[in-house]
Amino acid sequence: MDKDEFTVTPWEVKGEIDYDRLVSLFGTSYITPELLKRIPGSSGNLFLRRKIFYSHRDLEWLLENHEKGKSFYLYTGRGPSSGTHLGHMLPWIFTRQLQEMFGTQLYFQMTDDEKFLFKEQLTLEDTNRATYDNMLDFIALGFDPSKTKIIVDTRDIAHLYKIALKVSKKVTFSTAKAVFGFKNSTNIGSIFYTSIQSAPAFIESEMRGTNVPCLIPCGIDQDPHFRVTRDVAPLLGYYKPALIHGKMLPGLSGGKMSSSGEAAIYTTDSDEVIKKKVMNAFTGGRATVEEQRRLGANPDICPVYHHYEFLLEPDDDKLKKTYTDCRSGALLCGECKLNLLSKVLNFMKAHREKREKAKEIVSDFVFNAKVM
Amino acid sequence: MDKDEFTVTPWEVKGEIDYDRLVSLFGTSYITPELLKRIPGSSGNLFLRRKIFYSHRDLEWLLENHEKGKSFYLYTGRGPSSGTHLGHMLPWIFTRQLQEMFGTQLYFQMTDDEKFLFKEQLTLEDTNRATYDNMLDFIALGFDPSKTKIIVDTRDIAHLYKIALKVSKKVTFSTAKAVFGFKNSTNIGSIFYTSIQSAPAFIESEMRGTNVPCLIPCGIDQDPHFRVTRDVAPLLGYYKPALIHGKMLPGLSGGKMSSSGEAAIYTTDSDEVIKKKVMNAFTGGRATVEEQRRLGANPDICPVYHHYEFLLEPDDDKLKKTYTDCRSGALLCGECKLNLLSKVLNFMKAHREKREKAKEIVSDFVFNAKVM
Repeated sequence: MDKDEFTVTPWEVKGEIDYDRLVSLFGTSYITPELLKRIPGSSGNLFLRRKIFYSHRDLEWLLENHEKGKSFYLYTGRGPSSGTHLGHMLPWIFTRQLQEMFGTQLYFQMTDDEKFLFKEQLTLEDTNRATYDNMLDFIALGFDPSKTKIIVDTRDIAHLYKIALKVSKKVTFSTAKAVFGFKNSTNIGSIFYTSIQSAPAFIESEMRGTNVPCLIPCGIDQDPHFRVTRDVAPLLGYYKPALIHGKMLPGLSGGKMSSSGEAAIYTTDSDEVIKKKVMNAFTGGRATVEEQRRLGANPDICPVYHHYEFLLEPDDDKLKKTYTDCRSGALLCGECKLNLLSKVLNFMKAHREKREKAKEIVSDFVFNAKVM
Repeated sequence: MDKDEFTVTPWEVKGEIDYDRLVSLFGTSYITPELLKRIPGSSGNLFLRRKIFYSHRDLEWLLENHEKGKSFYLYTGRGPSSGTHLGHMLPWIFTRQLQEMFGTQLYFQMTDDEKFLFKEQLTLEDTNRATYDNMLDFIALGFDPSKTKIIVDTRDIAHLYKIALKVSKKVTFSTAKAVFGFKNSTNIGSIFYTSIQSAPAFIESEMRGTNVPCLIPCGIDQDPHFRVTRDVAPLLGYYKPALIHGKMLPGLSGGKMSSSGEAAIYTTDSDEVIKKKVMNAFTGGRATVEEQRRLGANPDICPVYHHYEFLLEPDDDKLKKTYTDCRSGALLCGECKLNLLSKVLNFMKAHREKREKAKEIVSDFVFNAKVM
């Protein structure tokens, strides 16, 4: 693979992602400073201010409607194939912030069917375990259960299936093949699956019997699904869902982006394991201390720096100082890693406690179409 | 289309069907006289005796297990796209007889999702109406609600979806394309659908937590679905369902087989309409009375005769007399049609009454996985 090559699909992210190229490849729009001003509280939001969430579809339309008093709801989700790592939680945290900014309803979809279908080795028992596990991490982030419901595809299929059928009737194999790169050897469940991921984008309209705008915050890798959803929407008489796209938190092993294994910090990792992962992280540093003092290092390619930037250093001035000290050679990688480690351990300590408490309120988040 | 050409797929039946050629094309087996002897009460059964149900898969295995005390269950169904006609009810009546012969549990699947997906013009409201309509005809045939449950795909999807996912993971687009003739323009719901039709073949095994043999009585046009089901079964650790295949009741307009419109007698047709359909039926008769008296007619190509044979003349001697009198020219088409009309009207009169009563017990047939 050339340095410039990268792959971003809902099921595979590899290579060094060129996020600007994705905007033109996918045909999305940048969140401009003008647009940002229309989001209440956006300047106080790390993810928007730092362009971690940087691209969108129809956000302007959504905000215009909101300004006119037409409320929207939020929809995001998770494919439960394994435990939860920091990179997974990033869009969830942003979603919670959006929910607070706008006071909206949120549906969180656990696509356990997707993971079962797309991962050869996974059983439904595996995805069921991962669903519960991921759910705890989601709930631990502090969502308001009166406004937040978790849809588990295999459990709540009765509420999704009719909408999914309507979507699936409007999507040909040609389209699915073109959008997702399916082959003749792809299983027929995987081919159908995108219809299920479309369903929550229309579920509020179905339940209320009138069209309700929907905003989907997600990693930009999920955009292909929602391109299909958006193409189908007018054919079924629904609004197209608006989207707000985020970048993916780089893995600690550096270079290539990855969402699993050694490269990521899981919420179930012990402090020992976290320490090992952080201290062994790839950095933008030099081969020797002497060289680094003399020439400085490169934070732009450093996953340790990106962990500060994406999530763990909310103070812009401190982040800037880290950046300049790294560039100048004043900050060495060991010290920088220790600082990150301390932040990660603090985050995880608090998260573990909230995660334990989450176990007691899981049932408050169960989706029930009748009471929504 | 040549005279010899015909099409038999789960969604299209046209041309003059060569049922022997289907056995070799599909790779099924004839129900031999030896096998017939092993079915208790088969000699008293019109459909078996007259080879209306004439082909099978693994029926021998099923009967052997049954003889050893291993009970099986029955599964059949209906795609609710329109009202019910005599041809639809034929396999249901046979299924009820099988249920009585063996004292087994029966699942009847209403594939409303299938009809919605495969018929461009149908809405889910249309298929919902047809489902209720067809259900009444099914129940009117006298099924025992304690042993018979109706699965409506969109209503009962929660009980089917996980099994369907497991099936769909084992079926590639190549396979679905080869079996069903799908194209790139086929919608992704239709491609997935066969997984849903497979589910009831495994549902009893899933619910009991142990493998239970399943027998599927159906029109031979449905065999492609269950070839897929049977191929997948061992990969998922289930028994392959056994099948018993029936011929399709020819339409009254003759020549080409058809299941709709003028060619078929619907349970909601008035006596006037039925009379018109029967009296206008195509027959194997001659151009003039004189010619027919002299040369005789041909019952083998006559849908009026086939209506006697398939359902409405249970007395073999009387059926034989009709056949020979037709051949000899002693029986003219007008008289024969009037006789059939009288039988159809009697059947429908009784059916309408039972259909009305069925409305009161629909809820007794609702599928509920927990109580089965």
